[in-house]
Amino acid sequence: MSGYRFDHISEILKSKKNDLLQVGLINGKLGTGKVIEITGQYTDISVTLDKDPPLPASLTLLLALPRPKILKRTLKHITVLGVKKIFLINSFRVDKSYWQTPVLDKEKIKDIFLNSLEQSCDTVLPELFMKPLFKPFVEDELPDIIKNTIPVIAHPKAANTLVDISGKHFTLAVGPEGGFIPYEIKKLKECGFEEYNFGERILPVETAVPGIISILTRSIHSCVDVP
Amino acid sequence: MSGYRFDHISEILKSKKNDLLQVGLINGKLGTGKVIEITGQYTDISVTLDKDPPLPASLTLLLALPRPKILKRTLKHITVLGVKKIFLINSFRVDKSYWQTPVLDKEKIKDIFLNSLEQSCDTVLPELFMKPLFKPFVEDELPDIIKNTIPVIAHPKAANTLVDISGKHFTLAVGPEGGFIPYEIKKLKECGFEEYNFGERILPVETAVPGIISILTRSIHSCVDVP
Repeated sequence: MSGYRFDHISEILKSKKNDLLQVGLINGKLGTGKVIEITGQYTDISVTLDKDPPLPASLTLLLALPRPKILKRTLKHITVLGVKKIFLINSFRVDKSYWQTPVLDKEKIKDIFLNSLEQSCDTVLPELFMKPLFKPFVEDELPDIIKNTIPVIAHPKAANTLVDISGKHFTLAVGPEGGFIPYEIKKLKECGFEEYNFGERILPVETAVPGIISILTRSIHSCVDVP
Repeated sequence: MSGYRFDHISEILKSKKNDLLQVGLINGKLGTGKVIEITGQYTDISVTLDKDPPLPASLTLLLALPRPKILKRTLKHITVLGVKKIFLINSFRVDKSYWQTPVLDKEKIKDIFLNSLEQSCDTVLPELFMKPLFKPFVEDELPDIIKNTIPVIAHPKAANTLVDISGKHFTLAVGPEGGFIPYEIKKLKECGFEEYNFGERILPVETAVPGIISILTRSIHSCVDVP
């Protein structure tokens, strides 16, 4: 092994012969690596893969494409939280130029995903789908995507709150800064989405996304409404 | 008015005479500003302040000082989520150099706070306290800080989960990357803290903080354990 993984092993971990390392195979199992040999250029590792990766988050995300800097940080949050299906969608308030950003290059995205999987001890690469046309996506593809899930739009002014979230799979739609426009909300509602309130503050996307995903997937107790 | 607020009004909002703007007074009320005059250098605004800022989050945060880049982003999450009392604390795994970062300069911190308050339509500046000595802070100051709150340590391997969180005020302790060491956990427990599980993934600080604060303050339904 050479490259950035070797650099990490030799310079950060400062591993020596016979040391044990945490390893994982992309889209495969987790396990242990034993350092057999380490030189100035490479290391030889004997690998045992015997542990399943952590369970994925029970959530599919639709995210109105944010500007590139925010996109990068938000994709990291999404990946470490275990979301495996991400649809980047268009919205009236998404600047057209955002679809041209180099951050959306396949290789750049894969780097973000791999780095985040390493941080969170996971191996399963998320799937990312780009949907630059709102209407055909919502009309033709979304009905299948939300099957057997609870379709949720987060809105700070919604009257309804979610109760009893445990054991459910959600499809969460997060709008752009400034929110979805009424036409977009209408189309999502026609498809089966409902607006829910997760607190009344207006949050930037990069805070709202990890916050709401955490509420929907990490409050590991059940919740019921107690007036 | 001149400076960055004038730039925003003239270049982003492109306001004209008689336009209405959202305004707020630092640590005071929110309201409306009417553009009386606007030139190339400044604008004159007539201000009415008649609305209370949003309620603060019912949470006090102890955060093991992260590295500067992460600190900056994490302080933004904390501020937009409405936390008003933040203690940056030391831990064995906090690199000593982090306490010397220019990000901790009073003016830099205030910029981060103001910018985040503007984004979230709030006026109340958080209070930030630096506590570079762990033991005297926990022994001498923490007992008073946690009075009438539920003191919580987030830990991905804890057996307990929190139930019935609504209407409570929390003091949340978040450790450094790698976690608090056993001695630190022991000292926090002696003070009254308990470890709770908010999901089993190991998260970077900048994801864990908005996630757990959201769970504790934004799940606006009550929660009870349903087996």
